Amino acid sequence: MARILIVFSSLFGANAQLAELADTTLTAAGVEVRVRRVAEVALPGDVQPSAADAPLADGADLDWADGYVFSSPSHTGLPSASIKAFIDEHHDAAVAGRFLDKTFTAMATSGFAHAGQERVVDDLNAVAAAWGCVIVPPSTANPIINKINGNPYGLSFVLEHGKLADRKLAEEAIGAHLARFAAVTAAIATLSERPAPSGQRKPPPTAADVFS
Amino acid sequence: MARILIVFSSLFGANAQLAELADTTLTAAGVEVRVRRVAEVALPGDVQPSAADAPLADGADLDWADGYVFSSPSHTGLPSASIKAFIDEHHDAAVAGRFLDKTFTAMATSGFAHAGQERVVDDLNAVAAAWGCVIVPPSTANPIINKINGNPYGLSFVLEHGKLADRKLAEEAIGAHLARFAAVTAAIATLSERPAPSGQRKPPPTAADVFS
Amino acid sequence: MARILIVFSSLFGANAQLAELADTTLTAAGVEVRVRRVAEVALPGDVQPSAADAPLADGADLDWADGYVFSSPSHTGLPSASIKAFIDEHHDAAVAGRFLDKTFTAMATSGFAHAGQERVVDDLNAVAAAWGCVIVPPSTANPIINKINGNPYGLSFVLEHGKLADRKLAEEAIGAHLARFAAVTAAIATLSERPAPSGQRKPPPTAADVFS
Amino acid sequence: MARILIVFSSLFGANAQLAELADTTLTAAGVEVRVRRVAEVALPGDVQPSAADAPLADGADLDWADGYVFSSPSHTGLPSASIKAFIDEHHDAAVAGRFLDKTFTAMATSGFAHAGQERVVDDLNAVAAAWGCVIVPPSTANPIINKINGNPYGLSFVLEHGKLADRKLAEEAIGAHLARFAAVTAAIATLSERPAPSGQRKPPPTAADVFS
Repeated sequence: MARILIVFSSLFGANAQLAELADTTLTAAGVEVRVRRVAEVALPGDVQPSAADAPLADGADLDWADGYVFSSPSHTGLPSASIKAFIDEHHDAAVAGRFLDKTFTAMATSGFAHAGQERVVDDLNAVAAAWGCVIVPPSTANPIINKINGNPYGLSFVLEHGKLADRKLAEEAIGAHLARFAAVTAAIATLSERPAPSGQRKPPPTAADVFS
Repeated sequence: MARILIVFSSLFGANAQLAELADTTLTAAGVEVRVRRVAEVALPGDVQPSAADAPLADGADLDWADGYVFSSPSHTGLPSASIKAFIDEHHDAAVAGRFLDKTFTAMATSGFAHAGQERVVDDLNAVAAAWGCVIVPPSTANPIINKINGNPYGLSFVLEHGKLADRKLAEEAIGAHLARFAAVTAAIATLSERPAPSGQRKPPPTAADVFS
Repeated sequence: MARILIVFSSLFGANAQLAELADTTLTAAGVEVRVRRVAEVALPGDVQPSAADAPLADGADLDWADGYVFSSPSHTGLPSASIKAFIDEHHDAAVAGRFLDKTFTAMATSGFAHAGQERVVDDLNAVAAAWGCVIVPPSTANPIINKINGNPYGLSFVLEHGKLADRKLAEEAIGAHLARFAAVTAAIATLSERPAPSGQRKPPPTAADVFS
Repeated sequence: MARILIVFSSLFGANAQLAELADTTLTAAGVEVRVRRVAEVALPGDVQPSAADAPLADGADLDWADGYVFSSPSHTGLPSASIKAFIDEHHDAAVAGRFLDKTFTAMATSGFAHAGQERVVDDLNAVAAAWGCVIVPPSTANPIINKINGNPYGLSFVLEHGKLADRKLAEEAIGAHLARFAAVTAAIATLSERPAPSGQRKPPPTAADVFS
């Protein structure tokens, strides 16, 4: 059974709700799921109770999972500073290859259709690329994606007054994409038994070596 | 045995050479390989004989393969117009889901280290996302990648006077990444037996519906 | 009086119509305008008469203008191969600094809200960066932009059956953004009298030097 | 005289040093300069004294300047969480149009040539687009840029053991680009006397309206 970790950043609750929908659909499909939030490091005073109801993600969660779903609001067109802080904190583990060959897919929300929804999921996919994950975007080949505005790079949702405009449609889209995501994750999880590439035995560079 | 299609665009031969190195390493690993070029639609008078020595790619090649390696020079920081023309011509097949769940990885060359190498492979990865492919970038977790400048999004090579600066190092990097790529491709190829999602039975939109 | 060149790629006429709206609003504001199309190198058989009614753009047009408006459909999430071919053909002039300090802004269309609208204008902006242009995106600070879906990186329009859904709203958004664009262009045009930086006197590299 | 604000994020001092070089070159050119750092919200225990020697940036600094230079390390291929937190905190001022028509250019550092240098400056440029800034990238038309690896989207520097590899070359590149940046800034600063667009009189949406 595949293990999938959902990590979200949320101030007002919308991404917490997306994470919950993803949890429901994956759990129903027999996937083992953990839902975790990141600490909100920017605008921490704005965090609503509905956004703060999951345990905080940590490195053990990242190690545990075969695949990751990252969900972030668009803040000024990029992933939130808070989800980025979580990523920055785990740089050393990434370079050490701890996330290699895990699967990845991204979700995003914004108040307007083009306020960075493509870029937010694209940036999260770029983090996944750096981590050595295998990226599973929704594509334009799935007609359900076009009903929610056709973002092929990640599931994305335009909010109305901070809420999902059509919860049923969101469930349908999340369900369809994550079923495929879970199938790819299960297929790839078999690879993790492979021996590590021989080049990776010596200690990799740490943040202190390559950050600046 | 996984089937991998290598598609390259090349004016002066460097990407043809990358394709050849990829062919050698994959064939030696027991993968079934096709190497194909695209017609050069911009600056066609500049095409050198060393760049014109492979058959032209077509839709049957795309259907045949379980995974794709796309290789393009950076022309003004983006993939060449010529590889883009090949992509545009296959829009309808992509939307019909014909490339769904095939694997994808990108290669690029440029004359200067930052003349778009990140963006070229990122744009090619975005095409793969739209096509429904599963993307396998090189990552920063593989120390060999850092020897060739650390592009985690796709294999990329800075040329000297239009040639690969260090052919042996290029072979080593291509070999390491494509061995992993072939393993992921083989693991995912098992998924193609799955029944198509029920939502995809009606005819999908064509270029005439969605292009403008 | 500022001189602005509008260059568009169009198969079915929508970008030709955007170019026409931009022409109308800029001409009314006292700007000298040229509207030019690029040759369609991909899917040339699909070009409709409504898309083929402007002269072809050339290097003299690029030299003539103080600012550029580039307009492209999203084809598989990237600018059309055809507008890219036009860009590739003018690489040498760009590296020679012929487009330095000209202003730039981008427009895009697609059939679905997120089928690459952010990425298409972002890629066009990246070309402008490589050319040395000064980029003037619409921003989120203009409320009219949010009425047409809030793309801060370039004006973008979701089509319905290949047509602008609301022509009056498109006129309003184009008018507001291009009035600002024309003002910035006029302010920057005064710089072109500056002597060229001394480092640029020797012949720059050509496509034959840096393309691959 | 143009007023330029330099905002940097730095753990180990390299971006602080870039900011200092930018300050020196701009001040010598008669520009009024403020150098400010952001609070480091990720890996705060790693901040070195050399990185902590400037006042913290605030909204009054953003209001004061005619142009911005943002400088960030690549952390996992994206701008640091810390510079992003500064951006997130100023969302409301951006949407209110307070940064409209100010100029912008970006700088970046990383330990490897392609570890996100293109993407970091591109993401910062995207923030500038959302803010309504006019973006002035270095271009490929300036031969000095190619000496430091040819990143046309922003000044970027590959570090050796966390330090600038060639300080004199960095000075030369920063000097050449920022002289042009200062000239464009001065030309555009004349526009700020224009009356605000009439559509912007009512209170714009705040983070509480559009963040999620």
